[in-house]
Amino acid sequence: MGRVTLASDPVVLALDIGGTKIAGALVTRTGRCTAMASVPTPARDGAGAILDAAAQLAGTLRASEEGNRVRGVGLAAAGVVDPTTGVVVSATDHLAGWAGTDLIEGIASRLESPGLPVRVQNDAQAHAAGEAWLGAAAGVSTALVVAVGTGIGGAVTVDGEVLTGRHGAAGHLGHLAVPAAAGLPCACGGTGHVEALASGVGLAQLHARLSGASGRSHNVAGPGVTPLDGRQVATLAATGDPVALEAVRMAGAALGVAVGGVSNVVAPDVVVIAGSLTGAGEPWWTALRSAVAGELIPALAGIDVVAAELGDRAALVGAARRVWQGLD
Amino acid sequence: MGRVTLASDPVVLALDIGGTKIAGALVTRTGRCTAMASVPTPARDGAGAILDAAAQLAGTLRASEEGNRVRGVGLAAAGVVDPTTGVVVSATDHLAGWAGTDLIEGIASRLESPGLPVRVQNDAQAHAAGEAWLGAAAGVSTALVVAVGTGIGGAVTVDGEVLTGRHGAAGHLGHLAVPAAAGLPCACGGTGHVEALASGVGLAQLHARLSGASGRSHNVAGPGVTPLDGRQVATLAATGDPVALEAVRMAGAALGVAVGGVSNVVAPDVVVIAGSLTGAGEPWWTALRSAVAGELIPALAGIDVVAAELGDRAALVGAARRVWQGLD
Repeated sequence: MGRVTLASDPVVLALDIGGTKIAGALVTRTGRCTAMASVPTPARDGAGAILDAAAQLAGTLRASEEGNRVRGVGLAAAGVVDPTTGVVVSATDHLAGWAGTDLIEGIASRLESPGLPVRVQNDAQAHAAGEAWLGAAAGVSTALVVAVGTGIGGAVTVDGEVLTGRHGAAGHLGHLAVPAAAGLPCACGGTGHVEALASGVGLAQLHARLSGASGRSHNVAGPGVTPLDGRQVATLAATGDPVALEAVRMAGAALGVAVGGVSNVVAPDVVVIAGSLTGAGEPWWTALRSAVAGELIPALAGIDVVAAELGDRAALVGAARRVWQGLD
Repeated sequence: MGRVTLASDPVVLALDIGGTKIAGALVTRTGRCTAMASVPTPARDGAGAILDAAAQLAGTLRASEEGNRVRGVGLAAAGVVDPTTGVVVSATDHLAGWAGTDLIEGIASRLESPGLPVRVQNDAQAHAAGEAWLGAAAGVSTALVVAVGTGIGGAVTVDGEVLTGRHGAAGHLGHLAVPAAAGLPCACGGTGHVEALASGVGLAQLHARLSGASGRSHNVAGPGVTPLDGRQVATLAATGDPVALEAVRMAGAALGVAVGGVSNVVAPDVVVIAGSLTGAGEPWWTALRSAVAGELIPALAGIDVVAAELGDRAALVGAARRVWQGLD
């Protein structure tokens, strides 16, 4: 568990339930995190266990502050989350039994102060809300925020507000067909989506295919051989390994085609890229930016494609913002 | 010029400047068109001539009503139109000298009552605003409106408001890469965009290619042979012609891949399809709907894909709505 600090302002208790960890923070009205902590997600133990862990983390954070300064609870969570009903509409297998969970009721009933307002939203949307409030998308009218990690997600913000869409399902940019991914199976059940090639998992699989084709057997995911994950492929590319470099460039370019195409629909003032693959190095960024530029209609030429600024804090800050908005 | 009718309510004068005609109407606060008329667009004669023709049409419409009931002017125009500055950011070659034109100044200076408020926007966005106000997208929270004619455009509406984006350039769904269009040159200068395959022009070219490949020389666009346009291909498909039918299905499916992918980002409550290709028949609609369904993430399964309802009135009504909003 991380270090806990103290402060004296009223705060919102923010929680971010992800596939591997649950992060929490106390967030002031100006977006300052006065306490942060995290615990591993009991991902295999069902929704009740996950919510128990989140509530326990919330209790720890509250115990770290003196007086009764918590004004509400903001929850960001993996899966498609309906912000109106608070129910998880759908989720991947990463979190067992997550789909169908009523997050508002589930959190409110586990808190010591059940009268506190609870707001929930999808984690990628919360992340974008945070970047639009205090990060790389602050101060612009329209922003496209893309998160590239194990999968690919994202959100569109307009004047700081996230577009949530039907059932809160907006932002699934990973499930856009791109020519380079034609035929590849996607985690959503479809085929040919950019996530199948340009996510961390997609990059790892791409590298395994390219390694096999190049005959460089030490990189092949053959029987008994552990394939590299996306981060390891990026690290290998940084050493100048030509196959890894090609994989990184192809993944960046495929992402850029999708981001550029969506940008022609959204017309963002800035594109913000978040997630672990933003550390994939200059070749990835160059391929990404070049592909985006190649897709944009002339009226949109020159849109900046920049890295996110808030890191793991983004979703916590974004989750807190919704609560503060409801209190103002 | 169309028939002009009379009414007694206050109205907004709406104009829709397209590549082939300029349409106009007097639109009441409830969206009723009390007069409609149109003139051909002097598309080759420059922006001044086009604005002169629009102003003349406006004068005719005003002369049709008694008293001084016109409260403002709403203009929908082809090209990327910045709704804030009123300037045409970019335009295709269809309208000579259109890019760079200040539409607000250009219209206001040509009207008899220069003090009237003038609002301008892109025609596809105005169309979507109209459908969201009074047509197939009325009453829903998020809508994706796609216009499929000579080109492919569109817009996203949230609670009836069009997302305009940077420079008013949002909605260019035609410039999304889809696998089926890989390598095809697009009117925007890019390659592989859905417009190159699924627009009216794209369908015509696709049919010409398929006809050539099938050896059916009576449909081939060879020397001295006029190729069929998109509408003629659709008509031929309706007779059961297998090559035309294949072209129509391929175009519908390619559009569906793009629409489905964008729907995963926007999460619309409804997808509304407008434009001349909506008359392409059941095989086109079936291919379109099937491809959309094939792309959607599970949380969005079942989104309706429906035909627009307002026809040519949509852009006029949408253009008028912006003016009424400014007056309320």
